Amino acid sequence: MDFICTKCGKRTPTTTLQPACSCGGLFELDFTPPKWSESLVDKNEWSQFRYRRFMALEGEAWRDVTMGEGRTPIIRLDDDVMLKMDYMMPTLSFKDRGAATLVAHMKSIGVKTCVQDSSGNAGNAVAAYAARAGIRCEIFVPEGTSPSKIRMIESHGAKVNVVPGTRDHCADVCRTKVREEGAYYANHVYNPFFYEGMKAYIYETFEELGRIPANIVIPVGNGTLFIGAVKALEHLEASGAIDKFPRIIALQSENCDPLFKAVEAHAGVPAHVDPKPTMAEGIAIGVPMRGKELLEMTYRHDIAFVRAPEEKILEARAKIAARGVYCEHTTAANYAAYLAFCEKNGPTPDTLITMCGAGIKSDH
Amino acid sequence: MDFICTKCGKRTPTTTLQPACSCGGLFELDFTPPKWSESLVDKNEWSQFRYRRFMALEGEAWRDVTMGEGRTPIIRLDDDVMLKMDYMMPTLSFKDRGAATLVAHMKSIGVKTCVQDSSGNAGNAVAAYAARAGIRCEIFVPEGTSPSKIRMIESHGAKVNVVPGTRDHCADVCRTKVREEGAYYANHVYNPFFYEGMKAYIYETFEELGRIPANIVIPVGNGTLFIGAVKALEHLEASGAIDKFPRIIALQSENCDPLFKAVEAHAGVPAHVDPKPTMAEGIAIGVPMRGKELLEMTYRHDIAFVRAPEEKILEARAKIAARGVYCEHTTAANYAAYLAFCEKNGPTPDTLITMCGAGIKSDH
Ligand SMILES: Cc1ncc(COP(=O)(O)O)c(C=O)c1O
Ligand SMILES: Cc1ncc(COP(=O)(O)O)c(C=O)c1O
Ligand SMILES: [Zn+2]
Ligand SMILES: [Zn+2]
Repeated sequence: MDFICTKCGKRTPTTTLQPACSCGGLFELDFTPPKWSESLVDKNEWSQFRYRRFMALEGEAWRDVTMGEGRTPIIRLDDDVMLKMDYMMPTLSFKDRGAATLVAHMKSIGVKTCVQDSSGNAGNAVAAYAARAGIRCEIFVPEGTSPSKIRMIESHGAKVNVVPGTRDHCADVCRTKVREEGAYYANHVYNPFFYEGMKAYIYETFEELGRIPANIVIPVGNGTLFIGAVKALEHLEASGAIDKFPRIIALQSENCDPLFKAVEAHAGVPAHVDPKPTMAEGIAIGVPMRGKELLEMTYRHDIAFVRAPEEKILEARAKIAARGVYCEHTTAANYAAYLAFCEKNGPTPDTLITMCGAGIKSDH
Repeated sequence: MDFICTKCGKRTPTTTLQPACSCGGLFELDFTPPKWSESLVDKNEWSQFRYRRFMALEGEAWRDVTMGEGRTPIIRLDDDVMLKMDYMMPTLSFKDRGAATLVAHMKSIGVKTCVQDSSGNAGNAVAAYAARAGIRCEIFVPEGTSPSKIRMIESHGAKVNVVPGTRDHCADVCRTKVREEGAYYANHVYNPFFYEGMKAYIYETFEELGRIPANIVIPVGNGTLFIGAVKALEHLEASGAIDKFPRIIALQSENCDPLFKAVEAHAGVPAHVDPKPTMAEGIAIGVPMRGKELLEMTYRHDIAFVRAPEEKILEARAKIAARGVYCEHTTAANYAAYLAFCEKNGPTPDTLITMCGAGIKSDH
């Protein structure tokens, strides 16, 4: 199987240890899944790998890597809204989906050591899955990362490097290590195998409900779930399993909204923004590296972009908790953005919102 | 349907609002599930209520209460041990199983307000499910309960009463309120509907593996999972679905071991102990109220009791985390006890251990 460069179109075998094309362009996978069919779902597998035939996975390495991630249930918030309980995961966030497939790929190509930059859910997930696969792991986190987050990453035997300065600088330091020391970059933005796992979000929804809801609310920082969901929906549509692409309501923080602004201006690349602090720190990505790709998908499917009003996030969190579900601040922003969308566009029934991070994770 | 008093044998309809028999004896359910059959499992239901036909539940109230709890996956720790990932739950612990069925029952009999004493996983679970069911809830917690635990309970709209003094005193204060003000006691020890949910642990294991492992490790404080598991296994055995009762390895803390000591002395009631502080605070119950019942089950099925060595708990936790799974201190004690069991009895393959609380929960 090959990667294709999103910039120059060059092919590179997926067995590569390089994080990107020699031209600097990011990889995408040259993979078309077989036509969707229930008979290709492995109903005896109690993880998202029941859909593995629709993922670009070679071999059986996933069996040693899976921790039963996925198959999360959908429950009612109210008459209009359903919640997909995507924090019911081994490391308590939806990033386990991507980490599981990425690390399965790493194991299948013989990676021994990896690095990643993230103090948040992605770093936690990669540390856990790397441990499971017996792959050494180093996580770069920006200064100010809470001791409990560091302790959690270290519990999995990963080395934590605290980098002075901003989060962006922290990523730079990590990427320098990738370039200069040839470390494998187990990163959710660079590595397309991460997206293969996120696709299961849609397959599960389709399997549980027997249909796809009219509206799907998706948070977008770097857009890992966004890309996975669009790919899976395109696959279901091409397979004739659904006859209409749902409306995706993509959200950003009002304090960090490069894609929202780009869509407003019908631009093909993310807008320059000056990010301000936000409670929704999980989606606070000022420069989404796959911005062009995200915007192409947005225009192709007429995806709506909205912003989570900062001062409504805690209220949204309380409303969800009053119905039994305690979620992260960043996850509450999903609902706050939906409510803002409804205020502008009227009632929006048959909507699925992702509960992608457990509440206790943002209480640290 | 009726409760039967475990002390005097008197019947009371399950619609009662009383916590126990008028003689003071605890209730048990007069309920025999239909013979186990896969055809009675509702395969389209993505929660433990797929097994509802084997639970003493009347009506459809569970539909408004479920948050998709259960259906947790089983993964490998090593060649001998499998882990059931029972913290992948709405409130991040296995107590959601019991809270879901108990609150479903409460909703079906029209309970409007309830109380519970627990600063731990059970209190968190009852607060969340009561909120979901629209039932007012008051949780009594002992002084010293961490602010983050209180915040989590309050997030669900429950009232938190901090009671000076010990945990036992806190329960007394709560029970006084039950007696004197007639509040409904949504308690995991008193109310048999709690156990109905815990049974799903076994049904799921049987459905996923197609068999029951030779050894099942179960932590015992008040014994909610213990009772649920024994009941479900007895049911599978009576149905001819399994031909051998597995060996249950029940564990207590070495610093609080009234049942271990009772079994050692072949006694019919829990031993008097003087509990010392332990990391495994979730199982530190000095006086298990259903001790007689637990010991009867123990002798009936030749259940082994072991103690988790205090100084091995952190090491056990680290070993599990090195395989990707970050669990609570109390949950690490399950594995520490298993290792102690192996040291004494030799290798013990085909063992299932429950991962019943998420690690971050004990980092508060
Ligand atoms: C809870 C939560 N929600 C949303 C996101 C945004 O995901 P992405 O950056 O892949 O779009 C993250 C990223 O870590 C997150 O942790
Ligand atoms: C993580 C954990 N393990 C084990 C137990 C023991 O459960 P029980 O007292 O029902 O035996 C508890 C109780 O709260 C718990 O929270
Ligand atoms: Zn290129
Ligand atoms: Zn009685």
